[in-house]
Amino acid sequence: MTAVQRPGQRAANALRPVRITRGYTMHAEGSVLIEFGHTKVLCTASVEEKVPPHKRGSGEGWVTAEYGMLPRATHTRSDREAAKGKQSGRTQEIQRLIGRSLRAVFDLKALGERTISLDCDVLQADGGTRTAAITGAFVAAQDAVSRLMDAGKLTASPIKDHVAAISVGILDGAPLLDLEYVEDSACDTDMNVVMTGAGHYVEVQGTAEGAAFTRAEMDQLLVLAEKGIAELVALQKAALGA
Amino acid sequence: MTAVQRPGQRAANALRPVRITRGYTMHAEGSVLIEFGHTKVLCTASVEEKVPPHKRGSGEGWVTAEYGMLPRATHTRSDREAAKGKQSGRTQEIQRLIGRSLRAVFDLKALGERTISLDCDVLQADGGTRTAAITGAFVAAQDAVSRLMDAGKLTASPIKDHVAAISVGILDGAPLLDLEYVEDSACDTDMNVVMTGAGHYVEVQGTAEGAAFTRAEMDQLLVLAEKGIAELVALQKAALGA
Amino acid sequence: MTAVQRPGQRAANALRPVRITRGYTMHAEGSVLIEFGHTKVLCTASVEEKVPPHKRGSGEGWVTAEYGMLPRATHTRSDREAAKGKQSGRTQEIQRLIGRSLRAVFDLKALGERTISLDCDVLQADGGTRTAAITGAFVAAQDAVSRLMDAGKLTASPIKDHVAAISVGILDGAPLLDLEYVEDSACDTDMNVVMTGAGHYVEVQGTAEGAAFTRAEMDQLLVLAEKGIAELVALQKAALGA
Amino acid sequence: MTAVQRPGQRAANALRPVRITRGYTMHAEGSVLIEFGHTKVLCTASVEEKVPPHKRGSGEGWVTAEYGMLPRATHTRSDREAAKGKQSGRTQEIQRLIGRSLRAVFDLKALGERTISLDCDVLQADGGTRTAAITGAFVAAQDAVSRLMDAGKLTASPIKDHVAAISVGILDGAPLLDLEYVEDSACDTDMNVVMTGAGHYVEVQGTAEGAAFTRAEMDQLLVLAEKGIAELVALQKAALGA
Amino acid sequence: MTAVQRPGQRAANALRPVRITRGYTMHAEGSVLIEFGHTKVLCTASVEEKVPPHKRGSGEGWVTAEYGMLPRATHTRSDREAAKGKQSGRTQEIQRLIGRSLRAVFDLKALGERTISLDCDVLQADGGTRTAAITGAFVAAQDAVSRLMDAGKLTASPIKDHVAAISVGILDGAPLLDLEYVEDSACDTDMNVVMTGAGHYVEVQGTAEGAAFTRAEMDQLLVLAEKGIAELVALQKAALGA
Amino acid sequence: MTAVQRPGQRAANALRPVRITRGYTMHAEGSVLIEFGHTKVLCTASVEEKVPPHKRGSGEGWVTAEYGMLPRATHTRSDREAAKGKQSGRTQEIQRLIGRSLRAVFDLKALGERTISLDCDVLQADGGTRTAAITGAFVAAQDAVSRLMDAGKLTASPIKDHVAAISVGILDGAPLLDLEYVEDSACDTDMNVVMTGAGHYVEVQGTAEGAAFTRAEMDQLLVLAEKGIAELVALQKAALGA
Repeated sequence: MTAVQRPGQRAANALRPVRITRGYTMHAEGSVLIEFGHTKVLCTASVEEKVPPHKRGSGEGWVTAEYGMLPRATHTRSDREAAKGKQSGRTQEIQRLIGRSLRAVFDLKALGERTISLDCDVLQADGGTRTAAITGAFVAAQDAVSRLMDAGKLTASPIKDHVAAISVGILDGAPLLDLEYVEDSACDTDMNVVMTGAGHYVEVQGTAEGAAFTRAEMDQLLVLAEKGIAELVALQKAALGA
Repeated sequence: MTAVQRPGQRAANALRPVRITRGYTMHAEGSVLIEFGHTKVLCTASVEEKVPPHKRGSGEGWVTAEYGMLPRATHTRSDREAAKGKQSGRTQEIQRLIGRSLRAVFDLKALGERTISLDCDVLQADGGTRTAAITGAFVAAQDAVSRLMDAGKLTASPIKDHVAAISVGILDGAPLLDLEYVEDSACDTDMNVVMTGAGHYVEVQGTAEGAAFTRAEMDQLLVLAEKGIAELVALQKAALGA
Repeated sequence: MTAVQRPGQRAANALRPVRITRGYTMHAEGSVLIEFGHTKVLCTASVEEKVPPHKRGSGEGWVTAEYGMLPRATHTRSDREAAKGKQSGRTQEIQRLIGRSLRAVFDLKALGERTISLDCDVLQADGGTRTAAITGAFVAAQDAVSRLMDAGKLTASPIKDHVAAISVGILDGAPLLDLEYVEDSACDTDMNVVMTGAGHYVEVQGTAEGAAFTRAEMDQLLVLAEKGIAELVALQKAALGA
Repeated sequence: MTAVQRPGQRAANALRPVRITRGYTMHAEGSVLIEFGHTKVLCTASVEEKVPPHKRGSGEGWVTAEYGMLPRATHTRSDREAAKGKQSGRTQEIQRLIGRSLRAVFDLKALGERTISLDCDVLQADGGTRTAAITGAFVAAQDAVSRLMDAGKLTASPIKDHVAAISVGILDGAPLLDLEYVEDSACDTDMNVVMTGAGHYVEVQGTAEGAAFTRAEMDQLLVLAEKGIAELVALQKAALGA
Repeated sequence: MTAVQRPGQRAANALRPVRITRGYTMHAEGSVLIEFGHTKVLCTASVEEKVPPHKRGSGEGWVTAEYGMLPRATHTRSDREAAKGKQSGRTQEIQRLIGRSLRAVFDLKALGERTISLDCDVLQADGGTRTAAITGAFVAAQDAVSRLMDAGKLTASPIKDHVAAISVGILDGAPLLDLEYVEDSACDTDMNVVMTGAGHYVEVQGTAEGAAFTRAEMDQLLVLAEKGIAELVALQKAALGA
Repeated sequence: MTAVQRPGQRAANALRPVRITRGYTMHAEGSVLIEFGHTKVLCTASVEEKVPPHKRGSGEGWVTAEYGMLPRATHTRSDREAAKGKQSGRTQEIQRLIGRSLRAVFDLKALGERTISLDCDVLQADGGTRTAAITGAFVAAQDAVSRLMDAGKLTASPIKDHVAAISVGILDGAPLLDLEYVEDSACDTDMNVVMTGAGHYVEVQGTAEGAAFTRAEMDQLLVLAEKGIAELVALQKAALGA
């Protein structure tokens, strides 16, 4: 493993500074701005007292997510998806991932026939937007659930555990935690890992951008991810005052 | 004219507190968060060294705008336009208005064959999003032009004057400046006025939501709007340090 | 105010010849061909005994409008919106304006739970299509209401007043009534005004196409519009044999 | 063959009254209102000095058609295709038929690299809209070609022959020419026939709506169609003053 | 009539080798691979115990069809319609034809309130895909009906007769049966004929691709088609073991 | 690890019978039917002598993939994506995965400025369609490359290694190789693994459908996948006669 010089002298196994701001906007039942370094994602949780067709009459609720990027969240302006008339494959892939990740820690039966919609909108992008979105959406969902409990609509929390996500990758042979944009665009392997507070896996998505990677490299990446996610879960708890 | 009790004891002819934050995000050539009370709109200006087909080879530039609202910027969640696959008539109407308003103070010849795209995204809505968007987009555009001049790409500014916008309306018979959401949804007449720094009209869009309005009422509204826009132009100048 | 030479020696404050032909097509409950000079718009009113979702069970009816232009209504052929798969922003803006204008003179409670759909299709365009559409749609709506009354489905008319519309503008410094295409495409300011038979405003939409306009100019335009609309209302009455 | 009572005592082998009005609108190179009884179709021919991609550089021109129906051309209002965002299968089938029929009598080489677009818009429908459209579009195309010749852009006509179309059908066992709506919706077999001035077939489209039809019935229908088309070609010639 | 040399020395009035393979895929209630020479179409029949809105509560069932072509079923790859976001006019025309043809031999009352959906997907194309689709869809529909009868959901078959289809055309003056691709793309006239087992016509669609065709030519084509369809019906019966 | 009874007494670490049929259809440069048990996917490779815009002038080629499922490939009929007008998020996710997987073993420089399009269409689904698609698409791509070499368009193969894919999962606590549908829909964890012939990872996508999974479980799954992929690569080689 070679040593790689990271921006800001960051250690290979260090997260960027993470900030979690609750109550960022006023209308949503949960509203969290999460920052992983320069990456800023606004995650709102909206509660509706109804469920989509496939859940009607089931006694179960639903948790879903949508993801978007403001046109100039990135270095060069990208076309607005609403104007193009369709969401890209990348957008759909990410929002499906966020939805699955959050559902993994929800007891939909305990939620009752209501829907929590998580909207994750990237205000500024510098790598790791999907992992920040999952990590922030959990806090927004928690706030929305707390409101339901405070309002007496729920007597027990349907949330079974924390969930958080981080990216790891291999750049010039070195495994790195929490890639920022310049690292992400140059790396050979990029892996997004979603884990619960208990340290179990919800999703692992590793992709060889350049050379295919070995089992040994994957093992190194999984160790890094586990460390990062444990730190993120601690930060979620601190933000929630738990 | 009857006296109407406004939220926060606001005077009938008073703006809400206005805040203009430049450099709100880091990638765009101009990035301004503008707040009219609880209404928050992120306005970015992006410069591209090319023009749309109808301007190619003309020696002139182009200024255009797009408008969006995050799904939970409002009291109840609205569907994401990117997911629905089309922009609503309201969205298109507003973004056409923003574009025309900004072009009114631009000398497109002096801009040269480049495009300034103004993206106005509502993070939180409480009435007046389109007028905040125009007022903020002007500041973002100014910052983008300053960068072009600093970079030596322009020797003289293509911006001929300030442009700002405000809403006025009649609620229970009383003319009011800068309607917030609860006023806007209850008023009889709603008018959006766009004016230049010189005090000339760029756009006047008045709509009777309830009873049709008289010429005398229109005159009252225009006076209010003129006052409000003069204040907004002063705030733009202060924000720009001019 | 300078004197401008208008096509056909028309006076600055004169309408083009207006013709209103009722019963132009046979199936619709109201069917009116309205001509403002060479501009020809077919306005049909269709009655359906049901309302859109947002009015169901409200006891109120709905009035809505759609606008279209035949591909070769204009000098050069424009693409068919049905073939392109979407209506332009301009089309949506106009049909929303027509709908609001007609609803301004309707008592939706008195209409009962039924919908009147106004289809305004431009057969030939020479400026002023949206104002002709509003003025003609009123007559078609009136015919449809008369049928409902004749059929005993309504005992009192839900129509509270006339509504008509006209464009005014400033060309080479001169305020002009009822712009035709060559004037419209060259003018500095273009204003569409919608008023009731009582002389109150329903909509005012003024746009500086070139230089911004002054309050004095706006006042001149409003006076011209008021004159034109009074004449249009008289023509509506004559056509309706009232 | 049983005797069937037709509306207006029309004979089984009689066309409805046909009217062809040239110059119906002013902008198009050819503009024809064609009426088959109550069916009214506006056919415009637009000339553009370019061809679609598959003809570029071929030295050949192109002839194409689009078809539309105003929402209230029919007994009950149908949704506007532009608002729905797509053309129905029926619309596409008809406009493909019109295009093929017109191209059958055009020498595309002689037309040169230009396009003639035929827009056929139904103002009022009472059966037979597609056959009226083909018959009227031919006259509009002829007018457009005459203009090209008058302007010296063409020295010889690219039109090789007339083309016209008529519907025939079997109702209660009786073969009928030129079905109107009440007949069309009740008939067992419906056939649209497109023929040249020389009496040759361009298209035959027969459909059993109810019972399948026999060879003998088809022969009867073809005889009727031949008679009707010969009359339509004569009417085209009269309208064109040939 | 001149003699034309066909690929493989095929006689002018001969079908290509036809193969009908039932049970080609395992999930559908009817699944048939039909081959007309190199043309291979997979026809599946799916039964659903519900009907589309226009049939609800009518006591009648519905039979409908969809048609698709794999992107590389043809000589050069064509764009995938799902990726383009719309079905071509040709696709819609063909699937409407298949649906009408099958409905012609169904007693929808006897089918009861259920839907049979026929999906015809071209795996390999060499001319005649629509006629193969109709011929194969009949067999798939028959299998689906047999299952309904075996399951006791139907006591009498709603299928009144066989239906099959073939193309005929004129190439270099010679009438030919069952055109393959090289013939189809070169022929002057192309006609698709759909007939019942009783030898009556369901659809006749003849198109002059080059020169218009005479009545005598049409008669020759109809004779050829009748011969081909009689053979196809015999092959359907053999495949069904009837 | 508990023992699970698999359909057909299959061992936990056994693949289903795999069949690879080359030359399945006749037009494509590569055409492979791959079967994993009852799952049947037709993979075609089409070569075009041009590249998409982002590669033009780069000297590099492109490899891309599209995925589709026939409507009745599954137990119950699913809507046709072409008719719905859009590809689902699942479809896009899968086709992006296939494209990335194939590009991982291609030297795009060596391919030259041409595109290989891989169309993977599921004729019959029983679990594992995306892994069958990747494994079969490799063989089709190899055939297309061989044709280019035989034609002298390439002197050296741009394919650097084999690539194949398999699914693994945990069902009732037992790790299983190559899940079929009944297993896939019941399992707790589902992982798709894409590896090269050299045994390195191209993609790893693990999802907890039910309970989150542990590191120990992931390790077991990766071992199973490695075994399965080694067997698939051997089968690819056998099919290619290498």
